[in-house]
Amino acid sequence: MTFTPTDYNPYDFANRRHIGPSPAEMADMLSAVGCQSLDQLIDETIPASIRQKRPLAWAPLSEHDLLARMREVAAKNRVMTSLIGQGYYGTVTPPAIQRNILENPAWYTAYTPYQPEIAQGRLEALLNYQTMVADLTGLPVANASLLDEATAAAEAMTMAERVAKSKARAFFIDRFCHPQTIEVIRTRALPLGIEIIEDMAENLDPSKVFGAIFQYPGSYGHVRDLTDEIAALHKAGAVAVVATDLLALCLLKEPGAMGADIAVGSAQRFGVPMGYGGPHAAFMSCRDDFKRSMPGRIVGVSIDARGNRAYRLSLQTREQHIRREKATSNVCTAQALLAVMASMYAVFHGPAGLRAIAERVHFMTNRLARALKAAGAKVAPKAFFDTITVEVGVGQAGILAAARQEGLNFRKIGSNRVGISLDETTDERVLVRILRAFGIEAAPPHRATLGFPEDMLRRSDYLTHPVFHMNRAESEMMRYMRRLSDRDLALDRAMIPLGSCTMKLNAAAEMMPITWPEFGSLHPFAPADQAQGYAEAIADLSEKLCEITGYDAFSMQPNSGAQGEYAGLLTIQAYHRARGEGHRNICLIPMSAHGTNPASAQMAGMKVVVVKSSANGDVDVEDFRARAAEAGGNLAACMITYPSTHGVFEETVREICQITHDHGGQVYIDGANMNAMVGLVKPGEIGGDVSHLNLHKTFAIPHGGGGPGMGPIGVRAHLAPYLPGHPETGGSEGPVSAAPYGSASILLISWAYCLMMGGPGLTQATRVAILNANYIAARLRGSYEVLFMGNRGRVAHECILDTRPFAEAGVTVDDIAKRLIDNGFHAPTMSWPVAGTLMVEPTESETKAEIDRFIAALQAIRDEIKAVEAGEIAAEDSPLRHAPHTVEDLVADWTRKYPREQGCFPPGSFRVDKYWPPVGRVDNVWGDRNLVCICPPVESYAEAAE
Amino acid sequence: MTFTPTDYNPYDFANRRHIGPSPAEMADMLSAVGCQSLDQLIDETIPASIRQKRPLAWAPLSEHDLLARMREVAAKNRVMTSLIGQGYYGTVTPPAIQRNILENPAWYTAYTPYQPEIAQGRLEALLNYQTMVADLTGLPVANASLLDEATAAAEAMTMAERVAKSKARAFFIDRFCHPQTIEVIRTRALPLGIEIIEDMAENLDPSKVFGAIFQYPGSYGHVRDLTDEIAALHKAGAVAVVATDLLALCLLKEPGAMGADIAVGSAQRFGVPMGYGGPHAAFMSCRDDFKRSMPGRIVGVSIDARGNRAYRLSLQTREQHIRREKATSNVCTAQALLAVMASMYAVFHGPAGLRAIAERVHFMTNRLARALKAAGAKVAPKAFFDTITVEVGVGQAGILAAARQEGLNFRKIGSNRVGISLDETTDERVLVRILRAFGIEAAPPHRATLGFPEDMLRRSDYLTHPVFHMNRAESEMMRYMRRLSDRDLALDRAMIPLGSCTMKLNAAAEMMPITWPEFGSLHPFAPADQAQGYAEAIADLSEKLCEITGYDAFSMQPNSGAQGEYAGLLTIQAYHRARGEGHRNICLIPMSAHGTNPASAQMAGMKVVVVKSSANGDVDVEDFRARAAEAGGNLAACMITYPSTHGVFEETVREICQITHDHGGQVYIDGANMNAMVGLVKPGEIGGDVSHLNLHKTFAIPHGGGGPGMGPIGVRAHLAPYLPGHPETGGSEGPVSAAPYGSASILLISWAYCLMMGGPGLTQATRVAILNANYIAARLRGSYEVLFMGNRGRVAHECILDTRPFAEAGVTVDDIAKRLIDNGFHAPTMSWPVAGTLMVEPTESETKAEIDRFIAALQAIRDEIKAVEAGEIAAEDSPLRHAPHTVEDLVADWTRKYPREQGCFPPGSFRVDKYWPPVGRVDNVWGDRNLVCICPPVESYAEAAE
Repeated sequence: MTFTPTDYNPYDFANRRHIGPSPAEMADMLSAVGCQSLDQLIDETIPASIRQKRPLAWAPLSEHDLLARMREVAAKNRVMTSLIGQGYYGTVTPPAIQRNILENPAWYTAYTPYQPEIAQGRLEALLNYQTMVADLTGLPVANASLLDEATAAAEAMTMAERVAKSKARAFFIDRFCHPQTIEVIRTRALPLGIEIIEDMAENLDPSKVFGAIFQYPGSYGHVRDLTDEIAALHKAGAVAVVATDLLALCLLKEPGAMGADIAVGSAQRFGVPMGYGGPHAAFMSCRDDFKRSMPGRIVGVSIDARGNRAYRLSLQTREQHIRREKATSNVCTAQALLAVMASMYAVFHGPAGLRAIAERVHFMTNRLARALKAAGAKVAPKAFFDTITVEVGVGQAGILAAARQEGLNFRKIGSNRVGISLDETTDERVLVRILRAFGIEAAPPHRATLGFPEDMLRRSDYLTHPVFHMNRAESEMMRYMRRLSDRDLALDRAMIPLGSCTMKLNAAAEMMPITWPEFGSLHPFAPADQAQGYAEAIADLSEKLCEITGYDAFSMQPNSGAQGEYAGLLTIQAYHRARGEGHRNICLIPMSAHGTNPASAQMAGMKVVVVKSSANGDVDVEDFRARAAEAGGNLAACMITYPSTHGVFEETVREICQITHDHGGQVYIDGANMNAMVGLVKPGEIGGDVSHLNLHKTFAIPHGGGGPGMGPIGVRAHLAPYLPGHPETGGSEGPVSAAPYGSASILLISWAYCLMMGGPGLTQATRVAILNANYIAARLRGSYEVLFMGNRGRVAHECILDTRPFAEAGVTVDDIAKRLIDNGFHAPTMSWPVAGTLMVEPTESETKAEIDRFIAALQAIRDEIKAVEAGEIAAEDSPLRHAPHTVEDLVADWTRKYPREQGCFPPGSFRVDKYWPPVGRVDNVWGDRNLVCICPPVESYAEAAE
Repeated sequence: MTFTPTDYNPYDFANRRHIGPSPAEMADMLSAVGCQSLDQLIDETIPASIRQKRPLAWAPLSEHDLLARMREVAAKNRVMTSLIGQGYYGTVTPPAIQRNILENPAWYTAYTPYQPEIAQGRLEALLNYQTMVADLTGLPVANASLLDEATAAAEAMTMAERVAKSKARAFFIDRFCHPQTIEVIRTRALPLGIEIIEDMAENLDPSKVFGAIFQYPGSYGHVRDLTDEIAALHKAGAVAVVATDLLALCLLKEPGAMGADIAVGSAQRFGVPMGYGGPHAAFMSCRDDFKRSMPGRIVGVSIDARGNRAYRLSLQTREQHIRREKATSNVCTAQALLAVMASMYAVFHGPAGLRAIAERVHFMTNRLARALKAAGAKVAPKAFFDTITVEVGVGQAGILAAARQEGLNFRKIGSNRVGISLDETTDERVLVRILRAFGIEAAPPHRATLGFPEDMLRRSDYLTHPVFHMNRAESEMMRYMRRLSDRDLALDRAMIPLGSCTMKLNAAAEMMPITWPEFGSLHPFAPADQAQGYAEAIADLSEKLCEITGYDAFSMQPNSGAQGEYAGLLTIQAYHRARGEGHRNICLIPMSAHGTNPASAQMAGMKVVVVKSSANGDVDVEDFRARAAEAGGNLAACMITYPSTHGVFEETVREICQITHDHGGQVYIDGANMNAMVGLVKPGEIGGDVSHLNLHKTFAIPHGGGGPGMGPIGVRAHLAPYLPGHPETGGSEGPVSAAPYGSASILLISWAYCLMMGGPGLTQATRVAILNANYIAARLRGSYEVLFMGNRGRVAHECILDTRPFAEAGVTVDDIAKRLIDNGFHAPTMSWPVAGTLMVEPTESETKAEIDRFIAALQAIRDEIKAVEAGEIAAEDSPLRHAPHTVEDLVADWTRKYPREQGCFPPGSFRVDKYWPPVGRVDNVWGDRNLVCICPPVESYAEAAE
């Protein structure tokens, strides 16, 4: 025997862990698609003309080396006690919530709960969130979260415009709003032609505005009753928005009690780490009669096929089919995972605990104020909750330095004041350090006295629902979280073959660093020298994304894909303006575009001109040319998706870009399908000027059950000066997010992904994503018609299955989607981009076995459809219509026209490990007709139990 | 309105998070047990005469402060690269395994899989472990893990004695064994009267021994073929034990191929952090004909009621009813969680990956050896795998210091050598640092050459079973782990009301620090100045345990409760010996004692004399007095459990202790029931001289699905000098565990528990544990007879329900236990301490709602029994006998004599969130008759699928 060393690298993250099919499986799959090699398949799929010339080349890190690198980088951040406030506060994440939600793939790998039958757990948690927000703000309806407080405020402005009776064109901003909120609103207002009046609340002239926003408590601490201002607004037919703080509202009079129409804010301090800016859940609540105008997702209550209670997303049509050319909002995501955490924090503490925390923070602030005043300091305001400011004159720099010496960050305000915001983590030791920074030696004794007038105390109860009065023992809490997660089907149990979202592996190694305190505890406005680790990570990620996309610069600010589109178009507009071509305002968008494209263009102040698509979904080049010519010197941009939303690499993309450039326009390439391009095609090389990347799709950020996301934008060099700026970090343009780097902490996930994959690994991932999709297309072609193949019969990274032919037999696309639940799968994307179809995207992370299970499921479904077509069983009697099947169906008398076995264990379904949906098919119409979006009262639970 | 501050502490871990019942619930429960106050209940339960005088007083920490404290302490450990080897190696824990197993309560809160129907997931993982060990060692049968390598070696010695044909009384230890292994074997041999011959293998005289143990590869690196030595042993009728290393066996000839009878070792380096000594899974495998003599748990394969494959613990009778007075082993636990991790590591890497890792480690070692030799160093041995030694003469201290300068720990060997063991984490950078410590500037190039003769290469395949050839994509691995955990019922879903084990909350905050690298990456023999954090934690935990128990000193060494008993008795023996009373050898043990008590006494070389129990389970004081008098000057000790195994605080305990002391004996109080005493009674004050504490019961270490555990012992001052020593840390006595502080890393859990509870919180926990037990007793008294109440009608922290009266109707205790699974509960302890009864211990962590659910379940079961008693249904037709019900029952035609609804949704069962067991009732007899304890071959999977 001669010794032969093994040729196997067990630390090859890309090829062994991230990419699903093993080399042997890939060989089988290639043979099924009729290719000799993966190279051949890629050549047949992607036109040679657009392929990138130089491969991505950086070397991969193993999981072990990645974590070591991350620890090095983490050590470069300096975690100080940040008392900067301004919308971000220290908070105690209950360990049970950290471990069982934030670090639990059952929660973080879930998709948006569009399929309610497999999402009852997170829908319940989000309903708790809505109830919590509605209760605390004193307004009856809340949504299931928005991206951040500043964009929520901007959304509130445009919502106010939609619902206001006043026809005024101005919006008033209270000067006590957080600076970043003011700037994000201004950014939003400008292209929409909304005039901004920023002033002290007492100077508000209600007749001049359609709405106004106040910060309560104010950014500098002020606690004021806004009742009179709001009444005056109402008299003028204007809408009152209050940006507020949930913890303060546990003690203070709520906006609803002041008459506010809309409340917004951040739920960050309910147990969600600051994370250098996010992700956090922002909230919005409003009057009942405004609810159908509210942006964002709303969880509601409906019934299932047996009449049992079931949760679902209400009014989904608002979101899924955004009003394209008339949109003033492009919100199409939420911060679900963070909203769930915040809601669990409220369940964990209950109203008594939240009130105790609010009191503790307030009494400590009051002590601090007393001590400072006793030492002769000028402290403002008179009435405060957790934030005070101190006049320090020319000593400002000295005080800030003394604070840093004590490990504290104060807020620098103007040139002569500092702000101090206390929070849940402020204890006796921190108080002593604060005072020491001012040269004060002893802290005054604790006293339970208020730092605001008693008539500002809250008089109404909140969180009265039983869920907030659950026994708060950790055993009970842990089991509640487990039960909810068990009701849901996420990536930790099965493939989620969505065409509209790249649901790939979110590796454990990628997720671990985000809960390290060195990354979690940083305030977004902490001095830059404390965030050197973040700076290094963001710089290296930017560099890699530039290399991947062929762009020259990146902005990490946009918090979602749609925000990226909007930011990219703003950048284009700013560029035109700077060249004296501010009149350019036409944006060409093909008919097949995602609904957010025209919505974003609209928000960026552009006029959308729709370009025809040909039958196969490709852009009609001649029509494009004609529209571009019509726009002529007014052409601002075109927005195209590449590969197309139909999953095809159009050969004409360069031509389209050229036409646009010829007319002086800029090309926006939507990066939603970037997973089909990384390492093979660079949008910046084929003619793109700007693109956003969905880091939560292509770059491994988990979907979190409907958020967080990140949508950074890359631009060519000529656009770089016009990327979003931020009041804290500078730049000529306005910000689009509350924090300079958006949800900075999750950028680490994408960075880790890039580092572990290496350039070649990323490229291979793209190739296998394409292989997986083509394999599904090839295997299912006999059963379903696959739409929109490329010239050479290949799909890109997704394939569209036509289910319209089954309509005649009465079988709907919904029937198929729900039947897939019986097989243990989340349905593919339904009816988009083509009504009556299913769009399937397996991603590179799925193994052949899992894909085969999916194929077996779809083939068995096809057989059931055939039985209906053949008249063997009526559609309404078939397992398709009765899907999904529940245990309740089995326990009840079985009167179906097919056997139990067929109903419950169709091919592809696991036997022992079967996923059982907790409810049967949910009635959407009933839910929208009977819109309830806070937790139903306890009596109705009793009824349901009966 | 006047402002009134809230009186609620949201950070009160003890009363809000750990203790289940809320204050309002406690009031209801007290009224149900007929007490005015908790004080009154405690007074009626615990005799005033034994109550401790001074309450436990230290203040609690909040979860937040605890984690801050833990980070401070962690920072005091210095994580260097330890190349010490000696049984502990750096390893890469795959992040997917860390997150989804080690940090997942579904795995770590599970109980030992005695109820196979609700434990199929971990049973499969443990079967994988057994298969892995059997394959790699080349021996056909393996157990499901032992405590550590050294105790496994000692177990192998006693097993060898049981099975050897040779009647010799000596055991040979190869001098190349790890020093701690040698010492633990010596400790074990001494009281058993086994002579130890320690020498070089070449000097072995087989005729003089019943067995021999060799280390392979040797502790100093030697790779030798032991075939000849083993053949010689066999010829003499002696047994050959090989202590070995799983990673080495991926490349080297396996012990089975050399003819070895038994193999032992540690699976630590298969992905389990060193943790300053543990916990890790040790392994043992053996020849087929020895399997019924093997200690420890063995998972086997059987069938369920439908004939489907089901896993179970085989040969359970060996463990549950240890052969009391004749025992030579007291093993009654395992390291299940760590064995699961190690098995998943093998699944994660597969044979190709493991081999690649082994080669990588070996080639790196070879490079190191070449470089050192090239520089003129004297390197040994000639044939090695991962360990070499270097002669450094008087330069030893200098080299060790130079290594530390490079962040490395070498092993100090004698006065003139250093040892270096490489591992999976050794990369190029580490190699360079090692060489630099020797003043060598350049590393030689990589070469794939062997550092041992080719005929030492392994020739057989391993891990051929499909589970080790699963697609290794993380998605697939994650889903496999999720599926397995979903099959099991653990504390994260329901109460586990075991009388024999205190299954309380394992809080997330307590668990978090153990996976921090500052605690996980320390080698147990690292220099003390690198382990200051551990030193502080262990010292403070010791101090608190002393205060809790009334003892003066603690040894943290014993790795399980039974090991604690054994260590405690050894301490007593050493004490007697030191006083010239080595002849004292009689140990009085009451009939009602746990089976490990006499086994441990036997192992400590004592003669067990059984004392009668009265009808109520109390020790018969008169019989005790008589037996003590008989023993007279030979009385070594008595062993009692307090409160008794029947759950009663015997009033006579002080008297029994006094009698023992009067005769010069020492009192061992078994701490298994310490959860009924903490803060109320100190064993050291009522007469105890030694106790062990089950930290995995009373002090919140999770049960891990059957381990880890910790059984430290407390002693009064006079015994302190005789506590276990250790070759690395000194002491006059021999060690009982491989590492000086046992499984040091999980001591942090108990410490965190003590810190967060505070003294008053711990005391309140005890009181509520007693309340919960009495509440169950009071509520169930109408349905079941509750045995063994105290004088005043109270039980301690557990209660025993008599199910013997139902035998007449044909209903067994098993029927009730399995029926409880339908209600969503783990069964109470069955038939112990009294056959035909159920012992229930709710612990303080269960809420009233969960306890009420349990009561409802047992009441409904009683109703079903009544129906059988009344002749309405035969026992064999009843839901009791058909329990547990599975989904398969529902899918199949229903021919039962009761409705589906009754079968599947009895009272107490959740509806939406019901736990469905993956198999029906498991056939134990079939399993023991057809003993299979490695993964069944793939064809049999195919059969099962049919």
